[in-house]
Amino acid sequence: MHTSRSGKPRVIITTGDPSGIGPEITRKALASPKITRLADFLVIGDTKTSLKLRKSPDICGKLSVQYLDRALGVIAKGEADCLVTAPINKANVRAGGLKDFEGHTEYLAGETLTKDYAMMFVGKSMKITLVTRHIALQDAPAKLTFDKIYRAICLTHRCLSGHFHLRDPKIAVAGLNPHAGEGGIFGKEEAAVISPAIRKASLTCGKVFGPFSPDAVFIDALHGKYDAVVAMYHDQGLIPFKLLYFKDGVNMTVGLPFVRTSPDHGTAFDIAGKGIADPSSMIEAIRLAVRLAHHS
Amino acid sequence: MHTSRSGKPRVIITTGDPSGIGPEITRKALASPKITRLADFLVIGDTKTSLKLRKSPDICGKLSVQYLDRALGVIAKGEADCLVTAPINKANVRAGGLKDFEGHTEYLAGETLTKDYAMMFVGKSMKITLVTRHIALQDAPAKLTFDKIYRAICLTHRCLSGHFHLRDPKIAVAGLNPHAGEGGIFGKEEAAVISPAIRKASLTCGKVFGPFSPDAVFIDALHGKYDAVVAMYHDQGLIPFKLLYFKDGVNMTVGLPFVRTSPDHGTAFDIAGKGIADPSSMIEAIRLAVRLAHHS
Repeated sequence: MHTSRSGKPRVIITTGDPSGIGPEITRKALASPKITRLADFLVIGDTKTSLKLRKSPDICGKLSVQYLDRALGVIAKGEADCLVTAPINKANVRAGGLKDFEGHTEYLAGETLTKDYAMMFVGKSMKITLVTRHIALQDAPAKLTFDKIYRAICLTHRCLSGHFHLRDPKIAVAGLNPHAGEGGIFGKEEAAVISPAIRKASLTCGKVFGPFSPDAVFIDALHGKYDAVVAMYHDQGLIPFKLLYFKDGVNMTVGLPFVRTSPDHGTAFDIAGKGIADPSSMIEAIRLAVRLAHHS
Repeated sequence: MHTSRSGKPRVIITTGDPSGIGPEITRKALASPKITRLADFLVIGDTKTSLKLRKSPDICGKLSVQYLDRALGVIAKGEADCLVTAPINKANVRAGGLKDFEGHTEYLAGETLTKDYAMMFVGKSMKITLVTRHIALQDAPAKLTFDKIYRAICLTHRCLSGHFHLRDPKIAVAGLNPHAGEGGIFGKEEAAVISPAIRKASLTCGKVFGPFSPDAVFIDALHGKYDAVVAMYHDQGLIPFKLLYFKDGVNMTVGLPFVRTSPDHGTAFDIAGKGIADPSSMIEAIRLAVRLAHHS
Protein backbone atom coordinates (compact mmCIF):
# COMPACT_ATOMS: atom_id res chain seq x y z
CA MET A 1 0.00 0.00 0.00
CA HIS A 2 0.87 3.70 -0.23
CA THR A 3 3.06 3.15 -3.23
CA SER A 4 2.09 6.28 -5.12
CA ARG A 5 4.93 8.67 -5.88
CA SER A 6 3.51 11.17 -3.42
CA GLY A 7 3.41 8.53 -0.70
CA LYS A 8 -0.29 9.27 -0.24
CA PRO A 9 -3.07 6.66 -0.37
CA ARG A 10 -4.48 6.14 -3.86
CA VAL A 11 -8.26 6.50 -3.89
CA ILE A 12 -10.53 5.49 -6.77
CA ILE A 13 -13.91 7.17 -6.97
CA THR A 14 -16.65 5.76 -9.20
CA THR A 15 -19.25 8.43 -9.94
CA GLY A 16 -22.16 5.98 -10.02
CA ASP A 17 -25.35 6.49 -12.01
CA PRO A 18 -24.68 9.21 -14.61
CA SER A 19 -28.19 10.63 -14.22
CA GLY A 20 -28.01 10.86 -10.40
CA ILE A 21 -26.15 13.20 -8.07
CA GLY A 22 -22.96 11.09 -8.07
CA PRO A 23 -20.98 13.20 -10.56
CA GLU A 24 -22.01 16.41 -8.75
CA ILE A 25 -21.08 15.30 -5.22
CA THR A 26 -17.77 13.89 -6.51
CA ARG A 27 -16.93 17.18 -8.19
CA LYS A 28 -17.96 19.19 -5.13
CA ALA A 29 -15.99 16.95 -2.75
CA LEU A 30 -12.84 17.23 -4.90
CA ALA A 31 -13.21 20.99 -5.22
CA SER A 32 -11.92 21.37 -1.68
CA PRO A 33 -8.11 21.39 -1.25
CA LYS A 34 -8.72 19.97 2.24
CA ILE A 35 -9.84 16.80 0.51
CA THR A 36 -7.58 16.70 -2.53
CA ARG A 37 -4.41 17.01 -0.48
CA LEU A 38 -5.38 13.89 1.51
CA ALA A 39 -4.72 11.41 -1.29
CA ASP A 40 -4.08 10.79 -4.96
CA PHE A 41 -7.42 10.44 -6.70
CA LEU A 42 -8.51 8.56 -9.79
CA VAL A 43 -12.12 9.34 -10.80
CA ILE A 44 -13.88 6.81 -13.02
CA GLY A 45 -17.12 8.04 -14.52
CA ASP A 46 -18.69 11.37 -15.35
CA THR A 47 -17.83 14.95 -14.52
CA LYS A 48 -21.43 16.13 -14.88
CA THR A 49 -24.90 14.71 -14.25
CA SER A 50 -26.61 13.88 -17.54
CA LEU A 51 -30.32 14.64 -17.48
CA LYS A 52 -30.64 13.36 -21.04
CA LEU A 53 -29.65 9.87 -19.92
CA ARG A 54 -32.56 9.85 -17.47
CA LYS A 55 -34.62 8.54 -20.36
CA SER A 56 -32.25 5.59 -20.87
CA PRO A 57 -32.17 3.73 -17.57
CA ASP A 58 -30.51 0.69 -19.18
CA ILE A 59 -27.57 2.77 -20.38
CA CYS A 60 -27.31 4.42 -16.93
CA GLY A 61 -27.26 0.98 -15.34
CA LYS A 62 -24.68 -0.38 -17.79
CA LEU A 63 -22.38 2.61 -17.27
CA SER A 64 -22.73 2.32 -13.47
CA VAL A 65 -21.44 -1.25 -13.64
CA GLN A 66 -18.71 -0.44 -16.19
CA TYR A 67 -17.26 2.16 -13.82
CA LEU A 68 -17.20 -0.39 -11.02
CA ASP A 69 -15.58 -3.04 -13.19
CA ARG A 70 -12.87 -0.65 -14.29
CA ALA A 71 -12.22 0.30 -10.68
CA LEU A 72 -11.92 -3.35 -9.72
CA GLY A 73 -9.40 -3.82 -12.54
CA VAL A 74 -7.24 -0.99 -11.27
CA ILE A 75 -7.37 -2.33 -7.70
CA ALA A 76 -6.58 -5.88 -8.90
CA LYS A 77 -3.41 -4.57 -10.55
CA GLY A 78 -2.37 -3.10 -7.19
CA GLU A 79 -2.67 0.43 -8.53
CA ALA A 80 -5.11 1.72 -5.95
CA ASP A 81 -5.62 1.31 -2.21
CA CYS A 82 -9.28 1.97 -1.73
CA LEU A 83 -12.60 2.56 -3.46
CA VAL A 84 -15.27 5.20 -2.84
CA THR A 85 -18.48 4.59 -4.74
CA ALA A 86 -21.05 7.29 -5.54
CA PRO A 87 -24.68 6.10 -5.61
CA ILE A 88 -26.16 3.85 -8.26
CA ASN A 89 -29.78 2.88 -8.84
CA LYS A 90 -30.71 -0.80 -8.46
CA ALA A 91 -33.61 -0.66 -10.93
CA ASN A 92 -31.39 0.97 -13.59
CA VAL A 93 -28.67 -1.64 -13.15
CA ARG A 94 -31.29 -4.37 -13.47
CA ALA A 95 -32.67 -2.67 -16.59
CA GLY A 96 -29.11 -2.67 -17.93
CA GLY A 97 -28.98 -6.45 -17.83
CA LEU A 98 -27.97 -7.60 -14.34
CA LYS A 99 -31.40 -8.93 -13.41
CA ASP A 100 -30.47 -10.06 -9.90
CA PHE A 101 -28.36 -7.06 -8.95
CA GLU A 102 -28.76 -6.40 -5.24
CA GLY A 103 -26.42 -3.48 -4.66
CA HIS A 104 -22.80 -2.35 -4.54
CA THR A 105 -22.07 -4.46 -1.47
CA GLU A 106 -23.16 -7.78 -2.93
CA TYR A 107 -21.69 -7.01 -6.38
CA LEU A 108 -18.24 -6.15 -5.04
CA ALA A 109 -18.28 -9.20 -2.76
CA GLY A 110 -19.23 -11.42 -5.71
CA GLU A 111 -16.62 -10.02 -8.08
CA THR A 112 -13.86 -10.40 -5.47
CA LEU A 113 -15.04 -13.89 -4.45
CA THR A 114 -15.57 -12.65 -0.89
CA LYS A 115 -17.78 -15.01 1.09
CA ASP A 116 -17.81 -13.28 4.47
CA TYR A 117 -18.75 -9.65 4.25
CA ALA A 118 -21.10 -7.19 5.93
CA MET A 119 -22.51 -3.72 5.51
CA MET A 120 -21.36 -1.35 8.21
CA PHE A 121 -22.50 2.21 8.76
CA VAL A 122 -20.05 4.62 10.29
CA GLY A 123 -21.01 7.90 11.95
CA LYS A 124 -19.14 10.18 14.29
CA SER A 125 -20.12 8.35 17.49
CA MET A 126 -21.75 5.16 16.26
CA LYS A 127 -20.95 2.17 14.07
CA ILE A 128 -23.69 -0.26 13.07
CA THR A 129 -23.34 -3.57 11.21
CA LEU A 130 -26.32 -5.29 9.57
CA VAL A 131 -26.93 -9.05 9.70
CA THR A 132 -29.61 -8.94 6.96
CA ARG A 133 -29.93 -6.21 4.35
CA HIS A 134 -32.34 -5.50 1.52
CA ILE A 135 -35.10 -8.02 2.07
CA ALA A 136 -38.77 -7.74 3.01
CA LEU A 137 -39.25 -7.34 6.76
CA GLN A 138 -41.35 -10.50 6.74
CA ASP A 139 -38.38 -12.51 5.47
CA ALA A 140 -35.84 -11.18 7.98
CA PRO A 141 -36.63 -13.42 10.99
CA ALA A 142 -36.19 -16.66 9.02
CA LYS A 143 -32.91 -15.42 7.52
CA LEU A 144 -31.35 -14.89 10.94
CA THR A 145 -29.25 -17.98 11.51
CA PHE A 146 -26.69 -18.63 14.22
CA ASP A 147 -24.03 -18.65 11.53
CA LYS A 148 -24.99 -15.32 9.95
CA ILE A 149 -25.19 -13.54 13.28
CA TYR A 150 -21.91 -15.03 14.47
CA ARG A 151 -20.13 -14.02 11.27
CA ALA A 152 -21.51 -10.47 11.41
CA ILE A 153 -20.20 -10.13 14.97
CA CYS A 154 -16.76 -11.48 13.99
CA LEU A 155 -16.53 -9.21 10.93
CA THR A 156 -17.44 -6.25 13.10
CA HIS A 157 -14.80 -7.21 15.63
CA ARG A 158 -12.17 -7.68 12.95
CA CYS A 159 -13.02 -4.29 11.43
CA LEU A 160 -12.93 -2.48 14.79
CA SER A 161 -9.57 -3.94 15.74
CA GLY A 162 -8.00 -4.25 12.27
CA HIS A 163 -9.25 -1.10 10.55
CA PHE A 164 -10.14 1.23 13.41
CA HIS A 165 -7.34 -0.04 15.65
CA LEU A 166 -9.52 -0.30 18.73
CA ARG A 167 -8.04 -2.44 21.49
CA ASP A 168 -10.48 -4.94 22.92
CA PRO A 169 -13.56 -3.33 21.32
CA LYS A 170 -16.98 -3.70 22.92
CA ILE A 171 -19.76 -4.91 20.63
CA ALA A 172 -23.48 -4.76 21.47
CA VAL A 173 -25.88 -7.10 19.70
CA ALA A 174 -29.51 -6.05 19.32
CA GLY A 175 -32.38 -8.48 19.82
CA LEU A 176 -34.90 -8.99 17.04
CA ASN A 177 -38.15 -8.48 18.92
CA PRO A 178 -39.62 -5.66 21.04
CA HIS A 179 -37.79 -5.60 24.41
CA ALA A 180 -35.57 -8.40 22.97
CA GLY A 181 -38.57 -10.73 23.33
CA GLU A 182 -39.19 -9.94 27.03
CA GLY A 183 -38.06 -13.38 28.14
CA GLY A 184 -39.66 -15.21 25.24
CA ILE A 185 -43.12 -13.61 25.51
CA PHE A 186 -42.85 -11.90 22.09
CA GLY A 187 -40.55 -14.07 20.00
CA LYS A 188 -38.04 -16.86 20.41
CA GLU A 189 -35.18 -15.79 18.12
CA GLU A 190 -33.21 -14.24 20.97
CA ALA A 191 -32.97 -17.58 22.79
CA ALA A 192 -32.75 -19.75 19.68
CA VAL A 193 -30.07 -18.05 17.59
CA ILE A 194 -28.96 -14.63 18.84
CA SER A 195 -27.82 -15.60 22.34
CA PRO A 196 -25.93 -18.70 21.16
CA ALA A 197 -24.11 -16.61 18.51
CA ILE A 198 -23.20 -14.03 21.17
CA ARG A 199 -21.91 -16.77 23.48
CA LYS A 200 -19.68 -18.22 20.78
CA ALA A 201 -18.45 -14.79 19.68
CA SER A 202 -17.62 -13.91 23.29
CA LEU A 203 -15.21 -16.84 23.29
CA THR A 204 -13.61 -16.11 19.91
CA CYS A 205 -13.84 -12.32 19.62
CA GLY A 206 -13.87 -10.93 23.15
CA LYS A 207 -16.32 -8.38 24.50
CA VAL A 208 -19.67 -9.09 22.90
CA PHE A 209 -22.87 -8.28 24.81
CA GLY A 210 -26.61 -8.70 24.39
CA PRO A 211 -29.14 -9.40 23.04
CA PHE A 212 -30.38 -5.96 24.08
CA SER A 213 -33.75 -4.33 23.67
CA PRO A 214 -33.55 -2.70 20.22
CA ASP A 215 -35.10 0.52 21.53
CA ALA A 216 -32.41 0.91 24.22
CA VAL A 217 -29.15 -0.30 22.67
CA PHE A 218 -28.53 2.58 20.27
CA ILE A 219 -28.72 5.29 22.91
CA ASP A 220 -26.30 3.27 25.07
CA ALA A 221 -23.90 2.97 22.12
CA LEU A 222 -24.25 6.68 21.40
CA HIS A 223 -23.25 7.37 25.00
CA GLY A 224 -20.06 5.40 24.45
CA LYS A 225 -20.96 2.15 26.19
CA TYR A 226 -20.20 0.14 23.03
CA ASP A 227 -17.95 0.63 20.00
CA ALA A 228 -20.46 -0.87 17.57
CA VAL A 229 -23.96 -2.33 17.42
CA VAL A 230 -24.83 -5.42 15.38
CA ALA A 231 -28.39 -4.93 14.06
CA MET A 232 -30.60 -7.80 12.92
CA TYR A 233 -32.35 -6.11 9.99
CA HIS A 234 -32.02 -3.10 7.70
CA ASP A 235 -34.30 -0.61 9.42
CA GLN A 236 -33.31 -1.62 12.94
CA GLY A 237 -29.88 -0.23 12.08
CA LEU A 238 -30.73 2.40 9.48
CA ILE A 239 -33.53 4.18 11.35
CA PRO A 240 -31.26 5.24 14.24
CA PHE A 241 -28.25 5.73 11.96
CA LYS A 242 -30.02 8.09 9.56
CA LEU A 243 -31.67 9.96 12.40
CA LEU A 244 -28.23 10.71 13.84
CA TYR A 245 -26.20 11.06 10.63
CA PHE A 246 -28.66 12.06 7.94
CA LYS A 247 -26.10 14.33 6.31
CA ASP A 248 -22.70 12.77 6.84
CA GLY A 249 -23.10 9.05 7.50
CA VAL A 250 -20.84 6.62 5.63
CA ASN A 251 -21.58 3.12 4.40
CA MET A 252 -18.64 0.72 4.23
CA THR A 253 -18.25 -2.91 3.23
CA VAL A 254 -16.46 -5.03 5.80
CA GLY A 255 -14.64 -8.17 4.66
CA LEU A 256 -13.55 -7.14 1.12
CA PRO A 257 -9.85 -7.42 0.23
CA PHE A 258 -9.70 -3.61 0.03
CA VAL A 259 -11.32 -0.64 1.80
CA ARG A 260 -14.60 0.41 0.22
CA THR A 261 -16.76 3.27 1.45
CA SER A 262 -19.76 5.10 0.06
CA PRO A 263 -22.12 7.94 0.98
CA ASP A 264 -25.18 6.49 2.74
CA HIS A 265 -27.73 8.08 0.41
CA GLY A 266 -29.13 7.28 -3.02
CA THR A 267 -29.02 8.83 -6.49
CA ALA A 268 -31.55 11.53 -5.48
CA PHE A 269 -32.99 11.79 -9.01
CA ASP A 270 -35.42 14.47 -7.77
CA ILE A 271 -32.61 16.98 -7.28
CA ALA A 272 -30.01 15.64 -9.74
CA GLY A 273 -28.70 18.23 -12.20
CA LYS A 274 -29.88 21.17 -10.09
CA GLY A 275 -26.53 21.79 -8.44
CA ILE A 276 -28.02 21.62 -4.95
CA ALA A 277 -26.80 18.18 -3.81
CA ASP A 278 -24.99 18.15 -0.47
CA PRO A 279 -21.54 16.50 -0.73
CA SER A 280 -21.12 16.03 3.07
CA SER A 281 -21.66 12.27 3.08
CA MET A 282 -19.35 11.86 0.04
CA ILE A 283 -16.67 13.93 1.75
CA GLU A 284 -16.92 11.79 4.89
CA ALA A 285 -16.78 8.62 2.76
CA ILE A 286 -13.53 9.86 1.19
CA ARG A 287 -12.07 10.87 4.55
CA LEU A 288 -12.89 7.48 6.05
CA ALA A 289 -11.44 5.56 3.09
CA VAL A 290 -8.22 7.56 3.31
CA ARG A 291 -8.01 7.07 7.08
CA LEU A 292 -8.51 3.32 6.83
CA ALA A 293 -6.18 2.91 3.83
CA HIS A 294 -3.49 4.72 5.81
CA HIS A 295 -3.93 2.21 8.60
CA SER A 296 -3.96 -0.87 6.43
CA MET B 1 -64.29 18.99 33.37
CA HIS B 2 -62.28 21.30 35.63
CA THR B 3 -64.85 21.10 38.36
CA SER B 4 -62.42 21.03 41.26
CA ARG B 5 -62.83 23.87 43.74
CA SER B 6 -59.54 25.30 42.63
CA GLY B 7 -60.65 25.27 38.99
CA LYS B 8 -57.55 23.24 38.15
CA PRO B 9 -57.55 19.92 36.30
CA ARG B 10 -57.85 16.92 38.61
CA VAL B 11 -55.10 14.40 37.94
CA ILE B 12 -55.01 10.85 39.28
CA ILE B 13 -51.62 9.18 39.54
CA THR B 14 -51.34 5.44 40.04
CA THR B 15 -47.92 4.54 41.42
CA GLY B 16 -47.72 1.21 39.58
CA ASP B 17 -45.73 -1.78 40.75
CA PRO B 18 -44.92 -1.27 44.45
CA SER B 19 -41.48 -2.86 44.06
CA GLY B 20 -40.50 -0.71 41.06
CA ILE B 21 -39.48 2.93 40.73
CA GLY B 22 -43.11 4.16 40.37
CA PRO B 23 -43.55 5.36 43.98
CA GLU B 24 -40.17 7.14 43.86
CA ILE B 25 -40.68 9.00 40.59
CA THR B 26 -44.19 10.00 41.69
CA ARG B 27 -42.88 11.41 44.97
CA LYS B 28 -40.01 13.20 43.22
CA ALA B 29 -42.30 14.67 40.57
CA LEU B 30 -44.74 15.97 43.19
CA ALA B 31 -41.94 17.42 45.30
CA SER B 32 -41.66 20.28 42.83
CA PRO B 33 -44.06 23.22 43.37
CA LYS B 34 -43.79 23.84 39.62
CA ILE B 35 -45.70 20.59 39.17
CA THR B 36 -48.04 20.61 42.17
CA ARG B 37 -49.42 24.04 41.35
CA LEU B 38 -50.47 22.82 37.89
CA ALA B 39 -53.34 20.64 39.10
CA ASP B 40 -55.14 18.97 42.00
CA PHE B 41 -53.58 15.54 42.48
CA LEU B 42 -54.94 12.28 43.82
CA VAL B 43 -52.25 9.62 44.23
CA ILE B 44 -53.42 6.00 44.38
CA GLY B 45 -50.76 3.57 45.52
CA ASP B 46 -47.58 3.70 47.53
CA THR B 47 -45.43 6.49 48.88
CA LYS B 48 -42.31 4.35 48.95
CA THR B 49 -40.83 1.49 46.93
CA SER B 50 -41.11 -1.79 48.84
CA LEU B 51 -38.10 -4.01 48.33
CA LYS B 52 -39.69 -6.66 50.56
CA LEU B 53 -42.49 -7.14 48.05
CA ARG B 54 -39.94 -7.98 45.35
CA LYS B 55 -40.24 -11.54 46.62
CA SER B 56 -44.00 -11.58 46.07
CA PRO B 57 -44.52 -10.79 42.39
CA ASP B 58 -48.16 -11.92 42.55
CA ILE B 59 -48.97 -9.39 45.29
CA CYS B 60 -47.12 -6.67 43.33
CA GLY B 61 -49.18 -7.56 40.27
CA LYS B 62 -52.46 -7.61 42.19
CA LEU B 63 -51.75 -4.24 43.82
CA SER B 64 -50.77 -2.72 40.44
CA VAL B 65 -54.18 -3.67 39.04
CA GLN B 66 -56.08 -2.60 42.17
CA TYR B 67 -54.63 0.90 41.90
CA LEU B 68 -55.74 1.08 38.28
CA ASP B 69 -59.24 -0.18 39.09
CA ARG B 70 -59.65 2.38 41.86
CA ALA B 71 -58.49 5.12 39.50
CA LEU B 72 -61.01 4.00 36.88
CA GLY B 73 -63.75 4.14 39.57
CA VAL B 74 -62.88 7.73 40.45
CA ILE B 75 -62.83 8.75 36.80
CA ALA B 76 -66.14 6.96 36.13
CA LYS B 77 -67.77 9.04 38.88
CA GLY B 78 -66.58 12.18 37.12
CA GLU B 79 -64.26 13.05 39.98
CA ALA B 80 -61.06 13.25 37.92
CA ASP B 81 -60.06 14.55 34.51
CA CYS B 82 -57.03 12.51 33.61
CA LEU B 83 -54.85 9.60 34.58
CA VAL B 84 -51.07 9.33 34.81
CA THR B 85 -49.82 5.78 35.33
CA ALA B 86 -46.41 4.90 36.78
CA PRO B 87 -44.84 1.70 35.39
CA ILE B 88 -46.11 -1.80 36.11
CA ASN B 89 -44.52 -5.15 35.27
CA LYS B 90 -46.39 -7.43 32.86
CA ALA B 91 -44.96 -10.65 34.31
CA ASN B 92 -45.98 -9.60 37.84
CA VAL B 93 -49.53 -8.75 36.78
CA ARG B 94 -49.75 -12.12 35.03
CA ALA B 95 -48.44 -13.82 38.18
CA GLY B 96 -51.15 -11.96 40.09
CA GLY B 97 -53.86 -13.70 38.12
CA LEU B 98 -54.47 -11.80 34.87
CA LYS B 99 -52.89 -14.43 32.63
CA ASP B 100 -53.43 -12.56 29.35
CA PHE B 101 -52.46 -9.12 30.61
CA GLU B 102 -50.82 -7.20 27.77
CA GLY B 103 -50.17 -3.80 29.32
CA HIS B 104 -51.77 -0.61 30.63
CA THR B 105 -52.96 0.39 27.18
CA GLU B 106 -54.94 -2.76 26.45
CA TYR B 107 -56.23 -3.06 30.03
CA LEU B 108 -57.60 0.48 30.16
CA ALA B 109 -59.15 0.07 26.70
CA GLY B 110 -60.81 -3.18 27.79
CA GLU B 111 -62.16 -1.81 31.07
CA THR B 112 -63.62 1.27 29.36
CA LEU B 113 -65.03 -0.78 26.46
CA THR B 114 -62.91 1.23 24.03
CA LYS B 115 -62.62 -0.50 20.67
CA ASP B 116 -60.54 2.02 18.76
CA TYR B 117 -57.40 3.03 20.57
CA ALA B 118 -53.71 3.44 19.89
CA MET B 119 -50.43 3.93 21.67
CA MET B 120 -48.87 7.30 20.92
CA PHE B 121 -45.46 8.52 22.01
CA VAL B 122 -45.03 12.23 22.54
CA GLY B 123 -41.69 14.03 22.61
CA LYS B 124 -40.79 17.67 22.27
CA SER B 125 -40.63 17.68 18.46
CA MET B 126 -42.08 14.31 17.46
CA LYS B 127 -45.25 12.29 17.94
CA ILE B 128 -45.37 8.64 16.89
CA THR B 129 -48.39 6.30 16.83
CA LEU B 130 -48.00 2.52 16.62
CA VAL B 131 -50.21 0.29 14.46
CA THR B 132 -49.00 -2.93 16.15
CA ARG B 133 -47.48 -3.11 19.63
CA HIS B 134 -46.04 -5.89 21.78
CA ILE B 135 -45.83 -8.83 19.38
CA ALA B 136 -42.95 -10.79 17.88
CA LEU B 137 -41.46 -9.04 14.85
CA GLN B 138 -42.28 -12.09 12.77
CA ASP B 139 -45.98 -11.64 13.51
CA ALA B 140 -46.14 -7.92 12.71
CA PRO B 141 -46.47 -8.07 8.88
CA ALA B 142 -49.53 -10.37 8.99
CA LYS B 143 -51.21 -8.19 11.63
CA LEU B 144 -51.04 -5.11 9.42
CA THR B 145 -54.49 -4.87 7.88
CA PHE B 146 -56.01 -2.03 5.91
CA ASP B 147 -58.47 -1.51 8.75
CA LYS B 148 -55.87 -1.33 11.53
CA ILE B 149 -53.67 1.09 9.62
CA TYR B 150 -56.63 3.25 8.64
CA ARG B 151 -57.86 3.41 12.24
CA ALA B 152 -54.41 4.27 13.60
CA ILE B 153 -54.18 7.16 11.13
CA CYS B 154 -57.66 8.42 12.05
CA LEU B 155 -56.97 8.18 15.81
CA THR B 156 -53.74 10.10 15.28
CA HIS B 157 -55.57 12.75 13.32
CA ARG B 158 -58.31 13.03 15.94
CA CYS B 159 -55.73 13.35 18.71
CA LEU B 160 -53.69 16.00 16.87
CA SER B 161 -56.74 18.14 16.13
CA GLY B 162 -58.84 17.36 19.22
CA HIS B 163 -56.20 17.17 21.95
CA PHE B 164 -53.29 19.13 20.54
CA HIS B 165 -55.51 21.62 18.70
CA LEU B 166 -53.50 21.51 15.51
CA ARG B 167 -55.33 22.87 12.48
CA ASP B 168 -55.13 20.62 9.46
CA PRO B 169 -52.33 18.43 10.88
CA LYS B 170 -49.91 16.64 8.57
CA ILE B 171 -49.46 12.93 9.18
CA ALA B 172 -46.66 10.80 7.69
CA VAL B 173 -47.14 7.05 7.41
CA ALA B 174 -44.06 4.81 7.40
CA GLY B 175 -43.74 1.84 5.08
CA LEU B 176 -43.09 -1.59 6.54
CA ASN B 177 -40.10 -2.68 4.45
CA PRO B 178 -36.61 -1.26 3.77
CA HIS B 179 -36.99 1.78 1.45
CA ALA B 180 -40.79 1.23 1.76
CA GLY B 181 -40.34 -1.86 -0.43
CA GLU B 182 -38.51 -0.03 -3.25
CA GLY B 183 -41.42 -0.38 -5.63
CA GLY B 184 -42.34 -3.91 -4.52
CA ILE B 185 -38.83 -5.38 -4.79
CA PHE B 186 -38.60 -6.09 -1.02
CA GLY B 187 -42.18 -6.61 0.15
CA LYS B 188 -45.73 -6.02 -1.00
CA GLU B 189 -47.43 -4.63 2.12
CA GLU B 190 -46.96 -1.03 1.00
CA ALA B 191 -49.03 -1.60 -2.14
CA ALA B 192 -51.44 -4.12 -0.61
CA VAL B 193 -52.54 -2.41 2.61
CA ILE B 194 -50.57 0.70 3.58
CA SER B 195 -51.16 2.79 0.45
CA PRO B 196 -54.90 1.97 0.31
CA ALA B 197 -55.28 2.96 3.99
CA ILE B 198 -53.45 6.23 3.31
CA ARG B 199 -55.68 6.95 0.31
CA LYS B 200 -58.86 6.45 2.33
CA ALA B 201 -57.51 8.46 5.26
CA SER B 202 -56.58 11.30 2.90
CA LEU B 203 -60.25 11.55 2.00
CA THR B 204 -61.62 11.35 5.53
CA CYS B 205 -58.87 12.92 7.65
CA GLY B 206 -57.03 15.36 5.42
CA LYS B 207 -53.28 15.59 5.03
CA VAL B 208 -51.92 12.07 5.20
CA PHE B 209 -48.76 11.16 3.28
CA GLY B 210 -46.67 8.08 2.54
CA PRO B 211 -45.77 5.28 2.71
CA PHE B 212 -42.29 6.66 3.30
CA SER B 213 -38.97 4.89 3.67
CA PRO B 214 -38.79 4.08 7.39
CA ASP B 215 -35.18 5.26 7.58
CA ALA B 216 -36.05 8.71 6.20
CA VAL B 217 -39.45 9.62 7.64
CA PHE B 218 -38.40 10.28 11.24
CA ILE B 219 -35.75 12.83 10.38
CA ASP B 220 -38.27 14.62 8.15
CA ALA B 221 -40.79 14.68 11.00
CA LEU B 222 -38.12 15.92 13.41
CA HIS B 223 -37.43 18.78 11.00
CA GLY B 224 -41.09 19.78 11.20
CA LYS B 225 -42.35 18.41 7.90
CA TYR B 226 -45.04 16.33 9.67
CA ASP B 227 -46.92 16.63 12.96
CA ALA B 228 -46.89 12.89 13.62
CA VAL B 229 -45.60 9.62 12.18
CA VAL B 230 -47.69 6.44 12.08
CA ALA B 231 -45.28 3.51 12.59
CA MET B 232 -46.10 -0.06 11.57
CA TYR B 233 -44.44 -1.93 14.45
CA HIS B 234 -43.07 -1.36 17.95
CA ASP B 235 -39.39 -0.86 17.24
CA GLN B 236 -39.93 1.11 14.05
CA GLY B 237 -41.44 3.79 16.29
CA LEU B 238 -39.64 3.18 19.57
CA ILE B 239 -36.07 3.04 18.25
CA PRO B 240 -36.15 6.62 16.94
CA PHE B 241 -38.36 7.83 19.80
CA LYS B 242 -36.10 6.53 22.56
CA LEU B 243 -33.00 7.75 20.76
CA LEU B 244 -34.44 11.26 20.76
CA TYR B 245 -36.31 11.26 24.09
CA PHE B 246 -34.62 8.65 26.25
CA LYS B 247 -35.14 10.76 29.36
CA ASP B 248 -38.38 12.64 28.92
CA GLY B 249 -40.57 10.85 26.39
CA VAL B 250 -44.24 10.32 27.22
CA ASN B 251 -46.52 7.44 26.28
CA MET B 252 -50.20 8.24 25.88
CA THR B 253 -53.26 6.22 24.96
CA VAL B 254 -55.30 7.73 22.17
CA GLY B 255 -59.01 6.88 21.93
CA LEU B 256 -59.90 6.40 25.63
CA PRO B 257 -62.79 8.45 27.07
CA PHE B 258 -60.25 10.34 29.22
CA VAL B 259 -56.65 11.56 28.91
CA ARG B 260 -54.10 8.95 29.97
CA THR B 261 -50.35 9.44 29.93
CA SER B 262 -47.41 7.54 31.32
CA PRO B 263 -43.63 7.72 31.45
CA ASP B 264 -42.16 5.72 28.56
CA HIS B 265 -39.91 3.53 30.72
CA GLY B 266 -40.43 0.43 32.85
CA THR B 267 -40.27 -0.46 36.54
CA ALA B 268 -36.43 -0.42 36.50
CA PHE B 269 -36.16 -3.08 39.22
CA ASP B 270 -32.35 -2.86 39.02
CA ILE B 271 -32.35 0.63 40.53
CA ALA B 272 -35.63 0.58 42.50
CA GLY B 273 -35.30 1.57 46.15
CA LYS B 274 -31.94 3.25 45.62
CA GLY B 275 -33.32 6.76 45.33
CA ILE B 276 -31.56 7.37 42.01
CA ALA B 277 -34.50 7.08 39.59
CA ASP B 278 -34.90 10.02 37.20
CA PRO B 279 -38.40 11.52 37.38
CA SER B 280 -38.08 13.50 34.08
CA SER B 281 -40.37 11.25 32.04
CA MET B 282 -42.95 11.17 34.89
CA ILE B 283 -42.85 14.96 35.12
CA GLU B 284 -43.41 15.27 31.37
CA ALA B 285 -46.26 12.73 31.57
CA ILE B 286 -47.95 14.88 34.25
CA ARG B 287 -47.38 18.10 32.30
CA LEU B 288 -48.84 16.58 29.16
CA ALA B 289 -51.89 15.17 30.97
CA VAL B 290 -52.58 18.56 32.54
CA ARG B 291 -52.14 20.37 29.24
CA LEU B 292 -54.48 18.01 27.40
CA ALA B 293 -57.07 17.94 30.22
CA HIS B 294 -57.13 21.75 30.11
CA HIS B 295 -57.89 21.61 26.43
CA SER B 296 -60.56 18.94 26.63
